[in-house]
Amino acid sequence: MNNQPMHQWAQDLWPICRSLTGQGVRDTLDYLGKLIPEMRRHSVPTGYQAFDWTVPKEWTIREAYIDDMRGNRVIDFKRNNLHVLGYSTPVNAVISRNDLEKHLYSLPDQPNAIPYVTSYYSERWGFCLSEKQRTALTGDQYKVVIDSDLHDGVIDFADVILPGERKEEILLSTYICHPSMANNELSGPVVTTALARWLATVTRRKYTYRIVFIPETIGSVIYLSQNLKEMQERTIAGYVVTCVGDERAWSFLPSRSGETLADRAALAVLRDREHKVYSFLDRGSDERQYCAPTVDLPVASIMRSKYGTFPEYHTSLDDLQFVTPKGLEESFQAYRSCIELIEHNEMWRATTYGEPQLGKRGLYPDLSRVGSAQNDVRKRMNFLAHCDGETDIIGISELIGVTPSACAELAQLFHEHDLIRPSGQ
Amino acid sequence: MNNQPMHQWAQDLWPICRSLTGQGVRDTLDYLGKLIPEMRRHSVPTGYQAFDWTVPKEWTIREAYIDDMRGNRVIDFKRNNLHVLGYSTPVNAVISRNDLEKHLYSLPDQPNAIPYVTSYYSERWGFCLSEKQRTALTGDQYKVVIDSDLHDGVIDFADVILPGERKEEILLSTYICHPSMANNELSGPVVTTALARWLATVTRRKYTYRIVFIPETIGSVIYLSQNLKEMQERTIAGYVVTCVGDERAWSFLPSRSGETLADRAALAVLRDREHKVYSFLDRGSDERQYCAPTVDLPVASIMRSKYGTFPEYHTSLDDLQFVTPKGLEESFQAYRSCIELIEHNEMWRATTYGEPQLGKRGLYPDLSRVGSAQNDVRKRMNFLAHCDGETDIIGISELIGVTPSACAELAQLFHEHDLIRPSGQ
Amino acid sequence: MNNQPMHQWAQDLWPICRSLTGQGVRDTLDYLGKLIPEMRRHSVPTGYQAFDWTVPKEWTIREAYIDDMRGNRVIDFKRNNLHVLGYSTPVNAVISRNDLEKHLYSLPDQPNAIPYVTSYYSERWGFCLSEKQRTALTGDQYKVVIDSDLHDGVIDFADVILPGERKEEILLSTYICHPSMANNELSGPVVTTALARWLATVTRRKYTYRIVFIPETIGSVIYLSQNLKEMQERTIAGYVVTCVGDERAWSFLPSRSGETLADRAALAVLRDREHKVYSFLDRGSDERQYCAPTVDLPVASIMRSKYGTFPEYHTSLDDLQFVTPKGLEESFQAYRSCIELIEHNEMWRATTYGEPQLGKRGLYPDLSRVGSAQNDVRKRMNFLAHCDGETDIIGISELIGVTPSACAELAQLFHEHDLIRPSGQ
Repeated sequence: MNNQPMHQWAQDLWPICRSLTGQGVRDTLDYLGKLIPEMRRHSVPTGYQAFDWTVPKEWTIREAYIDDMRGNRVIDFKRNNLHVLGYSTPVNAVISRNDLEKHLYSLPDQPNAIPYVTSYYSERWGFCLSEKQRTALTGDQYKVVIDSDLHDGVIDFADVILPGERKEEILLSTYICHPSMANNELSGPVVTTALARWLATVTRRKYTYRIVFIPETIGSVIYLSQNLKEMQERTIAGYVVTCVGDERAWSFLPSRSGETLADRAALAVLRDREHKVYSFLDRGSDERQYCAPTVDLPVASIMRSKYGTFPEYHTSLDDLQFVTPKGLEESFQAYRSCIELIEHNEMWRATTYGEPQLGKRGLYPDLSRVGSAQNDVRKRMNFLAHCDGETDIIGISELIGVTPSACAELAQLFHEHDLIRPSGQ
Repeated sequence: MNNQPMHQWAQDLWPICRSLTGQGVRDTLDYLGKLIPEMRRHSVPTGYQAFDWTVPKEWTIREAYIDDMRGNRVIDFKRNNLHVLGYSTPVNAVISRNDLEKHLYSLPDQPNAIPYVTSYYSERWGFCLSEKQRTALTGDQYKVVIDSDLHDGVIDFADVILPGERKEEILLSTYICHPSMANNELSGPVVTTALARWLATVTRRKYTYRIVFIPETIGSVIYLSQNLKEMQERTIAGYVVTCVGDERAWSFLPSRSGETLADRAALAVLRDREHKVYSFLDRGSDERQYCAPTVDLPVASIMRSKYGTFPEYHTSLDDLQFVTPKGLEESFQAYRSCIELIEHNEMWRATTYGEPQLGKRGLYPDLSRVGSAQNDVRKRMNFLAHCDGETDIIGISELIGVTPSACAELAQLFHEHDLIRPSGQ
Repeated sequence: MNNQPMHQWAQDLWPICRSLTGQGVRDTLDYLGKLIPEMRRHSVPTGYQAFDWTVPKEWTIREAYIDDMRGNRVIDFKRNNLHVLGYSTPVNAVISRNDLEKHLYSLPDQPNAIPYVTSYYSERWGFCLSEKQRTALTGDQYKVVIDSDLHDGVIDFADVILPGERKEEILLSTYICHPSMANNELSGPVVTTALARWLATVTRRKYTYRIVFIPETIGSVIYLSQNLKEMQERTIAGYVVTCVGDERAWSFLPSRSGETLADRAALAVLRDREHKVYSFLDRGSDERQYCAPTVDLPVASIMRSKYGTFPEYHTSLDDLQFVTPKGLEESFQAYRSCIELIEHNEMWRATTYGEPQLGKRGLYPDLSRVGSAQNDVRKRMNFLAHCDGETDIIGISELIGVTPSACAELAQLFHEHDLIRPSGQ
């Protein structure tokens, strides 16, 4: 067990109104920074050029509501962050219901859900509301107020570098730009935070860890623009951590080639978990940047319910009932297994010619016909038979049908008996 | 639409009695030469050595008939070219029905069809007739006359070279040695002629086109013996154009390896057409020479009903009812698509790091939640995600499930926006 | 037909009590040595170090029985070699039935079968008996006598080298360390002996043959320790010959990679025989040493009923009823085919450009439409079409669906006509 209160962290972060930019992102990073002392904060200003992209203005939202003509507040941003269209420009007016309709977003098929809509790169204002709320708007006129502004400011992000024995890096990336949604957002940062805290306590890290908290898309573009060469030289595997909080079946999104260490380790971990394998064509988060052909990092995703595929996605139904402590914990464990597998994923080479005489080491039955020990013996012999110095633990695990962690234990056992050594030594 | 009267050409060519050699071939090439002014005529003499082969004597056929003893002409070459066994030696005799039987060829299973039979390399004479005609022969004696001769002459063939910007060539090869058969013969030369005429009008040809009209087998052997080195150095893709006139399902015959550009382009074009894929073991036309191991050109075939598989094959039923203007036109379009695909089949490389900001170019929706545009956007993103400079248009088309022509359009769009450039530039 | 009396040899060898070491092995090699004059005898002493292994003491067994208190001999080694636990230490005592039970081995599920059990590397004594015999032991006390000893001696083995035109070797390995069992033991040495005798009579051997008779495991370890470098340099294919005497379906055990010449030739031979393909994970004989990652020889096995899978395995039911003359003969023929295939497995290259004119050589029908000869012609053309100098006979056989021996005959035919030559010549 992990014993890090991930669900509590998610509850604490829930009310904060995050967006691409603004105070909500800073408050979120402040909170997470207290949990991870190694966190480094960064920001770049509006107008900053990152590759093909330009950092937009910073958005501040203070208030947003719709009043009817009797003064009843029918829609109020204070009640739910999703009610205001992300990046809405300010408005303060009495308008006809007809005109108001052009600024409303609802979901006829999900009458109780408030959708999540944004307009980052084109200026407009609007309200998101449930279809039920929308059909209840029967007045002729309404007062609409959005107290917001778009101004030259900054975009905030953060990273954590945990050095290991080697310069080769494992990347974990998660995004912190969505208001009040639990699976497609908060599950990512809280599981990543728990992973960062666990990794910080690991005594012997073979690899260096780069853990990135960013606004989606523009954030990974900026981060790459500042670290591309280093990341291309060092990254051996990476994961975009998102949608890791519910309890439905597992999902796997491959890297572009589908054959990197990140893919192989994730699939080895998922082998014993019921999971659906998606195509790279189904991608939708920061792997779009990390796996772009000119960047080409080995980045995949282990998820529970994949973004875009569950009915609660991008609505107010994606909440902290849907995301559970158990769901978060299981995702933490899956990613931890994945990381541990990569840490142990050596290519081993047998030191003896032919099979070693396991019997004299107490690793083989001394009587030719004993059923009980046979299965263990066979696993041992099969593991050794593939220690050819060219096949890694993940590969042997697939070849002999033994879990990667059991293979790692066998490697340790045989290494202690000097029967195998790492390839190249 | 193509608007070249291919079916009319076939009707004009129908009565000419073609064979490996002789006036019929010359008349046919005269007719096609008027349609393609760029055509070059060639011939080599009887006895000419081409690789392992020797050019046979030229065959002239003037008259061939069977009369019964009352003077009724029961079989007459004038009524159908197929009635005389190809390359028959002359005969003029009254013989018993028993003796005649040894010289008759018919098809018991297809009682109305006259078979097509030849004996190029062993001297004999014979008549081909329908089973119905054969069973009607009840007389004791018949007069048989074949007024033909085999003499030292020439074998005729022709080619068309349409230069392009590059020396690399695309080969089209078709044969002109069968008398009065429509799908397994005339469809090939008339579709190839239409392709040659269309290619001659194309303003910008990237590749050079070599278009070959030959008697089958011996013709391709001769042509290769005179052009082997050049063709091996230059040919990037080639097709044997035959059996392209009926309206049944499509057929694909691969090259020897099945993995050349010719194969890949043809299969990309056929992806949206119901088609049967044959094995190289099912080959039967000039790819036998072009794909022979020592020649090894990348040559495949797109066909409708493949030779040897349809009941009309090599009989008088393979006629201009079976071959239709629609069938010819569709085959023309399939080959044209295939050629256009090869012309556009660049490997593109993204110019930006990470994804480009499509929104500022009007290529991405400015509101986060709009269903209608999504599909187009996804195609664009998927195309760009595979512009890695190593995957060609055909490859990307397969990876992202978008037609090659749509991919070529996307390439043009992004090239205009400077978001991709050809690999190597 | 082979006409070597393999079943008679097996009957002659049946009574000899073989084990890892001792007189039984020497008597067995004496017998086989008379059949194969080229055989060379070898031995190494107790305590000899072979790679990671130490040669154990030599075991001599003279007598072993259980008497009841009335003097009835209830179990007697003279009746069946299997009654004594292999490598039993001596004992001579009257003991209670309870104490005796700890030294008895039987099979409750197979009440009539005497199991075969050994304890090579841990000193103990015991008796093997049928479950029926065991339940008949109702007395309170029994006299147990095993007149054996373990002393510093030797371990015996033998090999046969039949030189060929080339230094490259084909390895045949079989074991001679099991007492009185027919399929999982005697079938191996007798079929191997017949193969050695046949090979000795072959006039022209392209390859050299190394034929090894050893005690299982320790024997192959010793043999490898003395010949490793040479065997690694020279061995192009090898087989462990075991379980080749019954008449059930064929079994195939691949080498570690499953893609060596040994695997490919064996699978080509088995293509027309009903067979089960096992995984390398199912290995269990000397391929454990030959295919160990640091040794890595191309060694596979063609078997009938594979060891460990048939109910008679390692019991007194594995007898000379189960193994038949027909079973031995068929296995001999399968291995002979396999060896002949490797001997003929050239990569051929066509000498002509394009297809050769087969007609002038009488290899092609002279009339265009003759059904009967077509199939043969097609095989010929398909064979030639793949003589590219890079594909061996086994590969062409798979590509064109013609048996390897038919392909070898085609190769000979075309070689005689100078239409193909071995690659590199």
